[in-house]
Amino acid sequence: MSKLIALYKQPLDPEAFDKAYFETHLPLLSKVPGLRSTSIRRVTRTLMGEGFYMLAEMDFADLDTLKAAMRSSEMAAAGEKLNSFAAGLVTLMFAETQG
Amino acid sequence: MSKLIALYKQPLDPEAFDKAYFETHLPLLSKVPGLRSTSIRRVTRTLMGEGFYMLAEMDFADLDTLKAAMRSSEMAAAGEKLNSFAAGLVTLMFAETQG
Repeated sequence: MSKLIALYKQPLDPEAFDKAYFETHLPLLSKVPGLRSTSIRRVTRTLMGEGFYMLAEMDFADLDTLKAAMRSSEMAAAGEKLNSFAAGLVTLMFAETQG
Repeated sequence: MSKLIALYKQPLDPEAFDKAYFETHLPLLSKVPGLRSTSIRRVTRTLMGEGFYMLAEMDFADLDTLKAAMRSSEMAAAGEKLNSFAAGLVTLMFAETQG
């Protein structure tokens, strides 16, 4: 399975971040063609290394579906919204599950 | 569900890292009490932000089980092995699934 993973650093205002993320970004993201599911993990403690705030995994059937999703107007709209509140906070990557 | 998430930066020698990780660290980790499953994602492309190499998610029923696992001798053995090949590469965090 192909995944789009977004890793977020600690926002200055977590409450405003959560509101923008869950109330506007996620609904836009849910319209992206080929997106099977999105799962969110909230970081509750950092034991070693850098501190992060949240991690989102978006699942697609395969790399071609993920690539097509990235080119879609729905992803452009979700990305534009994301930039308005998470610029400089996000690391965005493609990944493949293993084992 | 409570998760232990390990995020790895790019190793200098990916082949040696993979060998140590999959052939010795994962078998030690699999003995940790309370560990339900481990899932690995290999980063194949970075679109924005820092470059990472791999992400591992270890699932536990709840935070108490995760905390007990962190105190176990099995986790100490797995952690010691990890330090021998991944020191400086790993970010280790607790996280909770949401939604």
